[in-house]
Amino acid sequence: MLLCDVGNTSYHFFDGVRDYRAAAASFDPAQIDEQVFYINVNPKLEAILAASGWVDLGLHVSKQGYYETIGIDRLVACEAAGDGLIVDVGSAITVDLMEQGCYKGGFIYPGIEAMRRAYAQLSSRLDYAFNFDIDLDKMAFNSQDAVSYGFLAPLCAEVARHDARVILTGGDAHRLLPYFKTAQHDPLLIFKGMQKIINEAALC
Amino acid sequence: MLLCDVGNTSYHFFDGVRDYRAAAASFDPAQIDEQVFYINVNPKLEAILAASGWVDLGLHVSKQGYYETIGIDRLVACEAAGDGLIVDVGSAITVDLMEQGCYKGGFIYPGIEAMRRAYAQLSSRLDYAFNFDIDLDKMAFNSQDAVSYGFLAPLCAEVARHDARVILTGGDAHRLLPYFKTAQHDPLLIFKGMQKIINEAALC
Repeated sequence: MLLCDVGNTSYHFFDGVRDYRAAAASFDPAQIDEQVFYINVNPKLEAILAASGWVDLGLHVSKQGYYETIGIDRLVACEAAGDGLIVDVGSAITVDLMEQGCYKGGFIYPGIEAMRRAYAQLSSRLDYAFNFDIDLDKMAFNSQDAVSYGFLAPLCAEVARHDARVILTGGDAHRLLPYFKTAQHDPLLIFKGMQKIINEAALC
Repeated sequence: MLLCDVGNTSYHFFDGVRDYRAAAASFDPAQIDEQVFYINVNPKLEAILAASGWVDLGLHVSKQGYYETIGIDRLVACEAAGDGLIVDVGSAITVDLMEQGCYKGGFIYPGIEAMRRAYAQLSSRLDYAFNFDIDLDKMAFNSQDAVSYGFLAPLCAEVARHDARVILTGGDAHRLLPYFKTAQHDPLLIFKGMQKIINEAALC
């Protein structure tokens, strides 16, 4: 049995021991023989996944307490965490607040590559890779640090404002970990939530 | 005499009484007969402006105390303000800190349209105009508010963290004004700085 979290950039698999990724643009679900339970937020892959024979866990989840258009990945991570501020760092960075099992809302921030591209499209003078060694206690004194600080500091300030336990997850979580010193890093949070749905719906 | 602040999106003119804009992509500087003093951050317009006969105030400004690649518009706004956190809301949102005439660093955040485009490029499900009526004391409970909050709340949290006098300027400042309740709105700040340079260099 495999679990798969399908996003806008990649298929993220977990076989119970290790997790690995395949590119969303080129991977063919038909090449897997095992039973796969999946969730998907990528509208471009809906048809191919519906025809794959994989089991869509999104059909076994209640959105009660959440909102209708919330990404299934966010909901599943929230269910797995139960409490705290869940920061999922992928193509987009989603931030969701759970208090004693109740959803308290969230927000979406562009991910590392989306934000880098936003700066590059604004001006060739802002086309930099982010510097992940900057000190957010000092404002920037060069262009690369000015965009790096502009990406990191507002997000960190907003997360800190909620004064909640922070759980970092997602493919790029390790890049932000140094800026969330008290955060718990749980790269497999989404799969814990998927397993919980499978158990509750007695699918396996 | 005209003053002109040339950005990535528009030429912004001030004739001493009123200010107005022309699109950067289509406007021809040669069509103006008056003497024009300008600053420019748009690399695509450097050649056309150099050939226009307009006076480049960037050549009369010292960058001492700032950093070499800072946008001339940010430097000029800082010189005009002298003290406080200057938030210039244009194609990009620049935030710069001045303390008693000394530059203390800054950062760059994508502007409204750049951020909207970043979300839209991430997913067709995030392609929304921002809701500028949201309450930042409550996290979002629908997709439009989730991206609107994601654009606004992190920026506001970071600005608030500095506990400084806030001066809002730039073409889109009025959109953010409701979220910076104690801010001073000065749409002509950049032109005050340009006039200061003209006076100090005795150019006119």
